[in-house]
Amino acid sequence: MRADYIIRNAQVYLTFRQCFAERDVAVLGDKILEVSPKIFLADGERDGEHDGERENGEGGAGAPKRDGPTVVDGSGMYLIPGLVDIHMHIESSMTYPKEFSYFALKAGTTTVVADSHEIANVFGIEGIRAFMDQKTPLDIFYAIPSSVPATSMELETAGAAIGTEEVRELLKDDRVLCLGEVMNFQEVVREGGRTGDETQIQQMIRICGEERGRDVRIEGHCPKITGKDLNRFIYAGIDADHTQQTADSVLEKSDLGMFLELQAKSLTKEVVEAVCSHGLYENVALVTDDTMPDHLLEGQLDRIVRIAVEAGMPVEKAIYCATYTPARRMHLDDRGMIGPGKKADFVLLKDLEGFRPAAVFKDGRLVHETAGAGSLSGSGSLHGSDSPIRSDSPGAPKERLFPPHFYHSVHCKKAQPSDFRIKVEKPCTKVLVNVMKLSTFGTATQRVQRELAVRDGQVCWQEAGLCLAVLFERHGKNGNIAYGLVEGAFQKKGAAATTWCHDSHNLLVLGNSIQDMVAAQNRVVELEGGFVAAKEGRPVAEARLPVGGIICDAPLNELADDLGRVRQVFRELGYVNNNAIMSMGTVALPVSPALKLTDHGLLDVESQERIPLIEAYR
Amino acid sequence: MRADYIIRNAQVYLTFRQCFAERDVAVLGDKILEVSPKIFLADGERDGEHDGERENGEGGAGAPKRDGPTVVDGSGMYLIPGLVDIHMHIESSMTYPKEFSYFALKAGTTTVVADSHEIANVFGIEGIRAFMDQKTPLDIFYAIPSSVPATSMELETAGAAIGTEEVRELLKDDRVLCLGEVMNFQEVVREGGRTGDETQIQQMIRICGEERGRDVRIEGHCPKITGKDLNRFIYAGIDADHTQQTADSVLEKSDLGMFLELQAKSLTKEVVEAVCSHGLYENVALVTDDTMPDHLLEGQLDRIVRIAVEAGMPVEKAIYCATYTPARRMHLDDRGMIGPGKKADFVLLKDLEGFRPAAVFKDGRLVHETAGAGSLSGSGSLHGSDSPIRSDSPGAPKERLFPPHFYHSVHCKKAQPSDFRIKVEKPCTKVLVNVMKLSTFGTATQRVQRELAVRDGQVCWQEAGLCLAVLFERHGKNGNIAYGLVEGAFQKKGAAATTWCHDSHNLLVLGNSIQDMVAAQNRVVELEGGFVAAKEGRPVAEARLPVGGIICDAPLNELADDLGRVRQVFRELGYVNNNAIMSMGTVALPVSPALKLTDHGLLDVESQERIPLIEAYR
Repeated sequence: MRADYIIRNAQVYLTFRQCFAERDVAVLGDKILEVSPKIFLADGERDGEHDGERENGEGGAGAPKRDGPTVVDGSGMYLIPGLVDIHMHIESSMTYPKEFSYFALKAGTTTVVADSHEIANVFGIEGIRAFMDQKTPLDIFYAIPSSVPATSMELETAGAAIGTEEVRELLKDDRVLCLGEVMNFQEVVREGGRTGDETQIQQMIRICGEERGRDVRIEGHCPKITGKDLNRFIYAGIDADHTQQTADSVLEKSDLGMFLELQAKSLTKEVVEAVCSHGLYENVALVTDDTMPDHLLEGQLDRIVRIAVEAGMPVEKAIYCATYTPARRMHLDDRGMIGPGKKADFVLLKDLEGFRPAAVFKDGRLVHETAGAGSLSGSGSLHGSDSPIRSDSPGAPKERLFPPHFYHSVHCKKAQPSDFRIKVEKPCTKVLVNVMKLSTFGTATQRVQRELAVRDGQVCWQEAGLCLAVLFERHGKNGNIAYGLVEGAFQKKGAAATTWCHDSHNLLVLGNSIQDMVAAQNRVVELEGGFVAAKEGRPVAEARLPVGGIICDAPLNELADDLGRVRQVFRELGYVNNNAIMSMGTVALPVSPALKLTDHGLLDVESQERIPLIEAYR
Repeated sequence: MRADYIIRNAQVYLTFRQCFAERDVAVLGDKILEVSPKIFLADGERDGEHDGERENGEGGAGAPKRDGPTVVDGSGMYLIPGLVDIHMHIESSMTYPKEFSYFALKAGTTTVVADSHEIANVFGIEGIRAFMDQKTPLDIFYAIPSSVPATSMELETAGAAIGTEEVRELLKDDRVLCLGEVMNFQEVVREGGRTGDETQIQQMIRICGEERGRDVRIEGHCPKITGKDLNRFIYAGIDADHTQQTADSVLEKSDLGMFLELQAKSLTKEVVEAVCSHGLYENVALVTDDTMPDHLLEGQLDRIVRIAVEAGMPVEKAIYCATYTPARRMHLDDRGMIGPGKKADFVLLKDLEGFRPAAVFKDGRLVHETAGAGSLSGSGSLHGSDSPIRSDSPGAPKERLFPPHFYHSVHCKKAQPSDFRIKVEKPCTKVLVNVMKLSTFGTATQRVQRELAVRDGQVCWQEAGLCLAVLFERHGKNGNIAYGLVEGAFQKKGAAATTWCHDSHNLLVLGNSIQDMVAAQNRVVELEGGFVAAKEGRPVAEARLPVGGIICDAPLNELADDLGRVRQVFRELGYVNNNAIMSMGTVALPVSPALKLTDHGLLDVESQERIPLIEAYR
């Protein structure tokens, strides 16, 4: 049993001790063969040459025949397991699995568990399968989206739903590891009979156990739930949470046995201090949840590691929580550490402070190397002839990645100016309206009321400095159009329209100029999906999202450039938010506080009850 | 959702922090419903009465109707999860699952993973199934015995074998959690083709993955294996070890990703110091492995916790390693901690120092209470009408627990004095013989050589202070009889015979008096299995083991008494060993160092080669 190659004298991460020690690591095929202070070659073997120079050029196919394995000097490098991200959504990056794979690997992430609830909201199980069908060097496991649509078809019109039959179907695929972010607290804890009166989510949880027994996890989403409610939620079988934590919630949830998946917004100094001082690393994982396309260019889970370290977590612990604990949570016992028999998924770093992957190995093959990181890629045996290192220059993929109808999912007529008028049914001069007030940070809105003038039977919302939000059902189901008013969006004259509109992904138009709203809406319809900003009566920036109206099939850097231009217009128009794209994209998300707009109208999120736009006529 | 009962103000073990805090614990059915600093009753509810007095006597069926749940005062008590023992053999206690269950629960153990390789050596998969068919309040999961017989049918005659077909068959039962103690290093690491040339054990490991994917563990047995060999062993897929550790082996194995199951003999101060100083608790579990019948009366995994604490492990960490880490190792995520939704398996202790279970709850029901532990059992709602608290006085079970032929497994003729003579084929006056020298501690033997006189064509072994060991194949397969000589067994005149003879369980007779050997052997045959000691020409102590020749169907305390008398005779006859029963019972175990006797003759364990009894004729 001969190693393919040996990396000598690297500082290797010892997972069970969470420290580094100098070791040699031998790799055979897609697995680690041996980890030892010194790996001796067999009698008669000599080191395969590796002089640090490229021998065969970039794609280096066959290495010359040698007596012994290729030997690479890892001195001065840190060797850690590939990162494992167990709560994330590929669609947040508006890209497709193959492209996502490239950038995730570049960031040192070698395994993800994707909850594809966005594509499922458009195409249902077919959308999930289309993702699963894409072969990627990145290992992509799946969570079953538990809340598609986010609320119910009575409250919003999604393109499709995931019900118990789809859950059963998906559980047959062993890449499915969990039921994803169960969130509807009331439906989870509602009391009923043993089986007959179960809510749908209760049925889903039961079915997971019936079909797969111990081998499936139930992941939760339970911000601010505490005390008896939290106990009931966990009692129902949900024992992980990835929402925003506080120091108190970390302690309460940990004491009750909840596994915590910490994303950037949870990684405050207080939360990290709570994790560190109580030694809770074993039941904490770092996750990305959502990574916007432009952010994905800069990193993926490695970025969260940097954020955790910045917030005070020792880097050795952050590595642990980004590799071993998430793998173990998902019963992926074949990875998450550097040890014999484990997958040869690992990352080389030049220093721990910067935490920037210098080289990334997936399944034993070198899949990424930063310029000047040494010249590992010169050694042919470090990556096979089908190297996933993307050699192509930017450009659309040669063949379509999805079924043809995935490119024609925007079933919506082009709007007219008359679609953007709020008519008043009763004679009056003023109305009191319910308004969604945006935050400058995050996606929550506040419900406020404003008094607006009425003229010619129309509400004069423009004079009050508000924006109009119009949501067009676009899945071809009922042609609903719903109206809302927004405070805190564009301050200057302009508009935007998008089909990337969580979670049902209907077509949202937001603006303060009817002319611009028409232009933006029409352009999105023409593009069959996208994010368009308009001013002066015409579209001025756009990001195409032709696949299901939420995904771009071009290279990510093109998309990021396009989206950057949209962002720039948002800034010019005075839209203030840490992530304006996400802010607009969640105006229609009816599970995020407090007042949101679905294609059925305004919805009070907490009570899940409809709210009239016009509260009173005066 | 109303709790059945609430235990208030106990010091409850918080698993993720490995500490205690005052909590109320509510139980509903077989699960924990809530764990909170204070559990409030619903409006209009009042505490169900519980005055500490017995109301309905021992079996207390129906509790009176009450407004609220029964409330029990847990002040001053420690409440910890039920213990989880993931490496053990029920047959080591020479008893059957139902009886074992009673004593394990009494000791606070609520879940075990049993490797039934002893009964499998006698009856094969049918024996394992017979164990699995016994319903017990104790949760018994199973390991598939990977080494039945311990070596091969070429080297020893067992009653049955477990091959790849049996592995496939057993994997269908979801109580099967792992492949048990893979031990044959050479067969594990032997290199061959991809599938065609695999060894049987390699096939078994592959099949486990194919049939059950992530949901099955591969458990190992690799004492003293280190360095490259250890890497290869782990690379083959085996990532746990329960054999004797040293401080060095703990560190080396942990660094390579091995989970360590520490039994009593591993719990030295040095090993515990290594675990503690490197914080290796997460990947360490406490296990019993073998518990003799008389020891089982005194405890089970609780005893190992006491030993660990005695050796220097903080009790909070020992609890962790006896509850949560073993449950997690086996993917038993529904237990091992006190939290909502977890199994209501828990133990009340009066103090941590003594670590003696005062009350034990399994599936929410009180199944054991020590005299004077309070009067929990007075509360009817703490245990159902089918309480597993054994109310019967000692006596044989009313119905047979196993199929009829399990009681007739000793297929061996009664021996004659002539069976105990070693004849010499060649003319000589002396012979040089290979002798198994017993240790006074443990089961290993040493290979030594002795020169013995020959008279009348027979070896005069008695004059040299040796004992004769004669092994009769007793499974009805070939009638083999094999001879060995033993140093360090009985010093005075006597003999013993047993069918409890690891692992093939043939009939071993050991003694220095032919008359006594005949008497002991004949009595074991009459009993159809057992452990018999004889002196002065007649059996003087005996423990019946009628089921397969290895298990007693009487209550454990009767068996323990009987076995105690056998032990006493061993002592009187000068047999010096920390566990003389086990010492004799492993003379025929060909995977324990260094020279052992199978029904084919003497075997050198390391080389697995046969050794002649007579090395030279002089």
